[in-house]
Formats: sequence, structure tokens, C-alpha cells
Amino acid sequence: VKIVIVTGASGFLGRHTVSALRERGFYVHGLSRRPDADVSCEWQTADLFDTDAVQGVLKRVRPTHLLHLAWETEHGRYWTAPANARWVEASLALWRHFTEAGGQRAVGTGTCAEYTWDDSLLAGRPVEEGVPRAPRSFYGLAKSAAFDLLDAYSRSVGLDFAWGRVFFPYGPGDCRPTLIPSVIRALRAGQPAQCTHGRQQRDFVHVRDAATAFAALLEGKVSGAVNIATGTAISIAHVVTTLGALLRRPDLIRLGALEGRLDEPAWLVADIRRLRDEVGFVPRIDLIEGLRETVEWWERQIF
Amino acid sequence: VKIVIVTGASGFLGRHTVSALRERGFYVHGLSRRPDADVSCEWQTADLFDTDAVQGVLKRVRPTHLLHLAWETEHGRYWTAPANARWVEASLALWRHFTEAGGQRAVGTGTCAEYTWDDSLLAGRPVEEGVPRAPRSFYGLAKSAAFDLLDAYSRSVGLDFAWGRVFFPYGPGDCRPTLIPSVIRALRAGQPAQCTHGRQQRDFVHVRDAATAFAALLEGKVSGAVNIATGTAISIAHVVTTLGALLRRPDLIRLGALEGRLDEPAWLVADIRRLRDEVGFVPRIDLIEGLRETVEWWERQIF
Repeated sequence: VKIVIVTGASGFLGRHTVSALRERGFYVHGLSRRPDADVSCEWQTADLFDTDAVQGVLKRVRPTHLLHLAWETEHGRYWTAPANARWVEASLALWRHFTEAGGQRAVGTGTCAEYTWDDSLLAGRPVEEGVPRAPRSFYGLAKSAAFDLLDAYSRSVGLDFAWGRVFFPYGPGDCRPTLIPSVIRALRAGQPAQCTHGRQQRDFVHVRDAATAFAALLEGKVSGAVNIATGTAISIAHVVTTLGALLRRPDLIRLGALEGRLDEPAWLVADIRRLRDEVGFVPRIDLIEGLRETVEWWERQIF
Repeated sequence: VKIVIVTGASGFLGRHTVSALRERGFYVHGLSRRPDADVSCEWQTADLFDTDAVQGVLKRVRPTHLLHLAWETEHGRYWTAPANARWVEASLALWRHFTEAGGQRAVGTGTCAEYTWDDSLLAGRPVEEGVPRAPRSFYGLAKSAAFDLLDAYSRSVGLDFAWGRVFFPYGPGDCRPTLIPSVIRALRAGQPAQCTHGRQQRDFVHVRDAATAFAALLEGKVSGAVNIATGTAISIAHVVTTLGALLRRPDLIRLGALEGRLDEPAWLVADIRRLRDEVGFVPRIDLIEGLRETVEWWERQIF
């Protein structure tokens, strides 16, 4: 029997992942300070910063698997927040208590912010997992250090370990003030969507694809880091103008209204050979279909 | 007034460092599970893995400075021990509680094992602090990750931070089963000292020089990583034959009796320009003088 503890189970990616894990026959325990009755799993209430409480849950549940999605997420602050170090602490303690409770396989969540964002090094090529990392932010640095530490720790105690590096997830349920939700909100309110030039190329992955990829990664045997992405470069201008068309307000799209950020790369796209060939998962949801579904989700929301 | 908490104050490097700090006018609190009455400082008894206890000590003492020397040290095991991850956890918690207690400047202890040990990359040049690190062991990786995390954390909360990367400390009080104590013990027992070919070049630093360097680093304003070493390459054969001469048993030195380890570099020597020019410290103790003092220390011990 496969029993999994999922941290961050009530988050944007977590909710979708719980469904994907249940479909694969996992018995899912969500671990959270704030259980969410809308997510179908057995809830364990604990603060991940309270390592005694976490230890208690793991001893009681004795999970075979661990999927650790939780991290600092406060928009605009998480790039530099001191709490990034706290999340490394919490992650190391979680691995330790999972191991001591007899766990077998643990998967953590990384980010494309672990990679260099230097355009001259990226050189317009899809980023492979094995390249030397050079994170620019505290967030990226903390995730990268957590990967190295959890990987080495897992080897030293004989725990199966993998790490999904998520690129740019989007989709229904995303209320973060990131690009896609912000543009949708603006257009729905009849306000202009102020954007940069939009020539940045990104690897946008539908949250349900990312969730299914995590479930496949957790269920499988692949070790180490695996990019969770599509391998496809999409310009921000393409995303934004598609949203303008879907919401029938192309007139409100203001490409070039904002300065581009100097610290963001022109091109950030994943090499997904490990995901495809080793995990055996290929993203299925086309961008336009995914954006349409996202717009429809927003139209059903009552705020 | 300068109040410092020193972890690992009863260790080989710690004891010497407490003296060096007192000479510079620091009021020294040693933090340890096992206070050592032979070390002249005010002792605070706490297990560094017990973060509540550590928090209690820091709230009570309210140190202005922190010098964190403690780490897993069990010989032969610390290179790969799972506890390396636990020490990262403990170090992050220590920084957090030090910051919350109003601390101003914190110095941690790194190692030359953070650097690459690939001879083709070392290329017989002194290693500068800024080179890309590529630790080969879990110990080196954990120290390197701790440096990155503590550095980024300290920036994010406005804490002064430095990191002393110690090369090969030796001297009186070193009872670890490392090269120099092992050779001295063998010769004193009239037994052959089995050695490798001895052509490896290392940067041996006298523990009192290393301790004085840490005290200077803590008292000063330099940020980031600083090598704690001499900048001088000494062959292991030179050290071992010197010990043979000092103990009047050159006949017992067996260079070439053991296979060289494949995973150790031929050459590992520090660039000490930061220590010399920025910290303003130059090692003073000559190797032969230091070895003589070490031999004399062993001759005074009664086991």
C-alpha cells in the first residue's frame, strides 16, 4: 500500500497533485497548518516549522512516500525573504523524520530559479538538470542548497530521492498576482493590462500537467533532479495577446507599457528529456486550451 | 562591550580560540552539551540540536557576536554522516535565534573540503575563496551549502557575516586520529608509522594561528569567505620525516607503506590574500617550531 504525505496540499499545485496521486492509487495525507476541506485527502494539521509536531504526524501516519511542495510563497517577498532559510531547516527536519518513520521515497520541489539566469550562459538552449547552477535570488539559492543537501542526506541514509524543478506553472486555481492571473483580472475589470515588451520566452506548464508529472515522478524510480515543464518556448507577448483574444479585450493589452526587469533572462526553457524518457511523462495540455480553461475558471469565481 | 557565544568552545580549535578572543577583550560564553572546566569562559549548557534550548541561551546572553565552530567531527565518519544535514539545520536555527536576540556579527567555520579536489582544476595554484566550489564529500557539500545559506540569510536580515575556511590545522591538543597525532603516537610507542608516498602537498596551519585568525576575523568587518591557512605548500613526507627527527625515530617512518587514496588531491593550498590584506593577519608559527611544540605536548600527556 502506498501512503503519501503531501506538504502544501492546499496550494495551487498541491490541490491538483492530490487528485493525480489518488488516481494512481496513493492514500493521501495532506500536511498543513490550515487543512482545506475542498481537497479530498486525509488532513494532518501541523506547522512545518514545528518539527516536534511534524515528527508526531510522521510517526503516526508512517508514510511510504513523501511529496514536499510547501515553501514560502508570499508574492514579491519570497525571492528575498529570510524565511527561505527557515524552509531549508524545515525541509531537512522533514526528511529526517520521514526517514526515521521508515519512509522509502521522497520527492521535493525545485524551481527554474535554481539555474543561472545569465542569458550568455543560457544561450537560448533548453536547460538540462545537470548544468552548474548559479541562482540569482535567495529563493533560488535556498532551493538549490536544499536539493544538494536532501540529495546527499538521502544517499547517506539509503532513501530514494527525486526533485522536480518546476518552470512556470499556470492554470485554474492560480490566484497569485503573477502574469496570467493579473492580466485576466485587469481585462475582466475593463482595465488596461500593463505589460513589458513581452519578448521574454518562458516555459509555461499547465498545473494539471505539472501535478501529473509529480505523481509520476513520485511513483517511479528516477533519482535526482527532473525538470517539470513542456520544453516549449512561449513568448509572454503570445500569452498576453491570447488572453486579450479569449477575453475579447485585445484593445486593453499594453505591451511595452512597463520597463523590462534587468534581472530576468530573455529565455528560460527546460530540457525535458529526463521527464519524457526516464519518468515517461509528456505534458498534454496545449497552451491555448489551458489558457481558455483558466479564463473560464476565473469567470466562475465570485469575489 | 563585546559578548561572544562560541560553539565548539571545548574542541581542538575552540579552546585556543577562546583564549584568543579573551585577549581581544571579548567576554566569552562557551555553548556546549559538555562544558569543559579547563577552558576559561562562562559556560552555557545546551545541545545545539535542541533549538528551543539554544534560543533560551541566546535570549538570556544577548551576545553581540557569534563564532560557530561546532560540527560533526567523528573521525572517518564525518565525511559521509547523515548528521551533516543536521548540522546545517542547527546552524540555520542558530543564526535565526542569534539575529532575533539582537546579534550583530556572526562567523561560521568552513573547510578546504568545500573546494574542488580535482587536481586538473586545482592546477597547483593556491585556491581563492571566490572559485566555483565543487565539494566531493557530504561534509564539504554541507559546509558549502551552509555558507551559501547563512550568507544569503545574513544579507536578508542585515547581519554582518563572515566564514573562515580552515585548511589543515595541527598543534597541541589535537587528539584526533589524523596524520600528525597518529605518527607521533606510533613513534612514541616504538611502532612503525605507516604512511602513503607522502608527496601530497598540504597547507598546514598551527591551531593557535588559526584561532588568532578567527578572533581577528570576528572582531573585524570583512564579509564572506576567508581562507584560514598559511599559503605554504608542505609535503606530507616533509611533515612525517620532521616528526621522525624530532622524536629521534627516523627509522620508524615508512613512506610508501600505504596506498595513496584515489580521492585525495595532490595539492591543496590556500590563497591567503584576503586573510593577510583584508583581515590583517599573517600566520606566525613556523612548521618545525609548531611540530616541536606538538611533540612536546604529547610528551607531557599521561594516558
